[in-house]
Amino acid sequence: MSFSMDIEATDGSARTGVIKTIRGEIRTPAFMPVGTAATVKAMKPETVRETGADILLGNTYHLMLRPTAERIERLGGLHKFMNWERPILTDSGGFQVMSLAKLRKITEEGVSFQSHIDGSKHMLSPERSMEIQRLLGSNIVMAFDECTPYPATKKETEESMLLSMRWAKRSYDAFHNGSQYATENALFGIVQGGVFEDLRHHSVAALKEIDFEGLAIGGLAVGEGQDVMFEVLDYTMPVMPKDKPRYLMGVGKPDDIVGAVERGIDMFDCVMPSRSGRTGQAFTRRSTVNMKNARHTDDPRPIDEECTCSACQSYSRAYISHLIRAGEILGPMLLTEHNLTYYQDLMSGLREAIAAKKLSEFVTAFHEKRAMGDIDPIG
Amino acid sequence: MSFSMDIEATDGSARTGVIKTIRGEIRTPAFMPVGTAATVKAMKPETVRETGADILLGNTYHLMLRPTAERIERLGGLHKFMNWERPILTDSGGFQVMSLAKLRKITEEGVSFQSHIDGSKHMLSPERSMEIQRLLGSNIVMAFDECTPYPATKKETEESMLLSMRWAKRSYDAFHNGSQYATENALFGIVQGGVFEDLRHHSVAALKEIDFEGLAIGGLAVGEGQDVMFEVLDYTMPVMPKDKPRYLMGVGKPDDIVGAVERGIDMFDCVMPSRSGRTGQAFTRRSTVNMKNARHTDDPRPIDEECTCSACQSYSRAYISHLIRAGEILGPMLLTEHNLTYYQDLMSGLREAIAAKKLSEFVTAFHEKRAMGDIDPIG
Repeated sequence: MSFSMDIEATDGSARTGVIKTIRGEIRTPAFMPVGTAATVKAMKPETVRETGADILLGNTYHLMLRPTAERIERLGGLHKFMNWERPILTDSGGFQVMSLAKLRKITEEGVSFQSHIDGSKHMLSPERSMEIQRLLGSNIVMAFDECTPYPATKKETEESMLLSMRWAKRSYDAFHNGSQYATENALFGIVQGGVFEDLRHHSVAALKEIDFEGLAIGGLAVGEGQDVMFEVLDYTMPVMPKDKPRYLMGVGKPDDIVGAVERGIDMFDCVMPSRSGRTGQAFTRRSTVNMKNARHTDDPRPIDEECTCSACQSYSRAYISHLIRAGEILGPMLLTEHNLTYYQDLMSGLREAIAAKKLSEFVTAFHEKRAMGDIDPIG
Repeated sequence: MSFSMDIEATDGSARTGVIKTIRGEIRTPAFMPVGTAATVKAMKPETVRETGADILLGNTYHLMLRPTAERIERLGGLHKFMNWERPILTDSGGFQVMSLAKLRKITEEGVSFQSHIDGSKHMLSPERSMEIQRLLGSNIVMAFDECTPYPATKKETEESMLLSMRWAKRSYDAFHNGSQYATENALFGIVQGGVFEDLRHHSVAALKEIDFEGLAIGGLAVGEGQDVMFEVLDYTMPVMPKDKPRYLMGVGKPDDIVGAVERGIDMFDCVMPSRSGRTGQAFTRRSTVNMKNARHTDDPRPIDEECTCSACQSYSRAYISHLIRAGEILGPMLLTEHNLTYYQDLMSGLREAIAAKKLSEFVTAFHEKRAMGDIDPIG
């Protein structure tokens, strides 16, 4: 097996270390930018790397529909296709088939659906999801699961979780098909169970019986709020394996990430920094700023004076505000670069703080700075 | 005066040399990418520079409306605002006020109009155009003119040209206001006269009586066709000053540029390489290719195997075709980079050919390669 995790330091429940893959190392806690359709939107991959990203996330659902996993495989795999030679994690398609596809039908076998792009008919199952992720050449493959809707009754949540556990075993069997690919890359299970402690514990126990290389926590960041999310982590993390990567899927806002790292999470992904960049939102050490706001139009200062990204080094708020107002593509390019740099700087700060056993000081300073709000307007 | 042109070699009517400005040198024949709204669309300025561009064009009409010339001046000028430290040429606004603005009214004084963005009322005149271009910090300022509509009768063309000549003198007087800015930067006159030899000759003679640093040929590439355009150049170029830059405005397709360089033009600008990049068109040494065409979807080859741009070095036609189909911003980013590189490589080839007195061989090879058409589809 070419995949391993070294935990180099801990501070409370938080850990920092390195995940080793055949495509290189991932420093943890890690934030994975989302490259939905084989591109981190508005970014060249070399710029994504310059922000500090060690690994990207690719979306099985989008890629199976366009340009198709088979085409990407013929062209040499996802890494080559999108010019990103470092690690890639792919989701299973389970979440997005439920949120994007049309005419979905869930059975024990899997999910049949129609493409949101052209209405064509498709099937996703544990076996098909494993096949697609292998065709893409993913380095961290996610088991196929059902993301339980929120809110859901306990009975609905339990039935959904139990289905996901049966699919987890089928994912494992399909992944471990004797190929060299399976020995070189990793399969992660996904803990479900909604906001119910006993169901989360049941799910972790079921997944522990299968030899996954890491476990993700799914079904959060779906509207339950940060307090509930942290509560779920508080009772779920203690029963999770200590020696394997723990990935909180689809999270989140900067303070979500900080709180989850404090609770022992190693990996995150979220569209927020890239999506916000396309809608004119900038994350700064002091605030989250709407660059469309009129107060920026004459402001010669950078988005964030502490940031070293090229958007902050070479451009003013006035200029970026102009680009966003004028609908210029360079606006999303610069804001996405900034936001991803902000997220990676946050992860770097968390890693250093854990290594120095100063996480609580780091977290206090983080919240104090965010509480200050944005810099005062010019004039 | 900090502005000068050295003609280093000639081959027939074609010339190659260097224009010197306070912001650095411009190798000629030069192609100027268009940075309409203080950005070459979908490009970072450092990437524009990497394509080989020595100078950008900025648009007075767009910038006066948004973010306004006064705001750009307060923020330190257009170079600083858009992070481009090299030379900038600005047009006068005369062309775009006629093609974009609403409720235009032309008088001897100038053009009153309403903004196409928000309907606000504005005035452009020789004096106001000079003021705006000075506020922007332009290194090559264009005289304010009326771009004669095409087609137009000879009488309409003559009246329009004579108005432009009176505005040229007013532009000159307004530009040379005794400021240090006027001593450090250049003002170009614009030859009008449509497709009428005597009117073009009259216009050149009128402009020669004013001490412009260079002359542009305006009113072409407006629908008259390449044959007519070259015919106008054939009778206009011989009477143009030999020791000053000659700029063919708004041109053009690659073969337009080649033919105009053969006729002695030194400078070009055109939105074609950047606009085409946003609509999925790629210029190659053999063809102009629509990347949306289905034959590219499985093609592992680059857009142009002779091209050294990062889009051709790191990405396949299949990938770029996928990006365009998926509406991903990276598609225009890569295609614009490629197209601008293609244009700059063409200019570089023309400069080298003139210096070696092998322009006719270069032009023959250029046309032979373009006549081959695109590479054969895969499979």
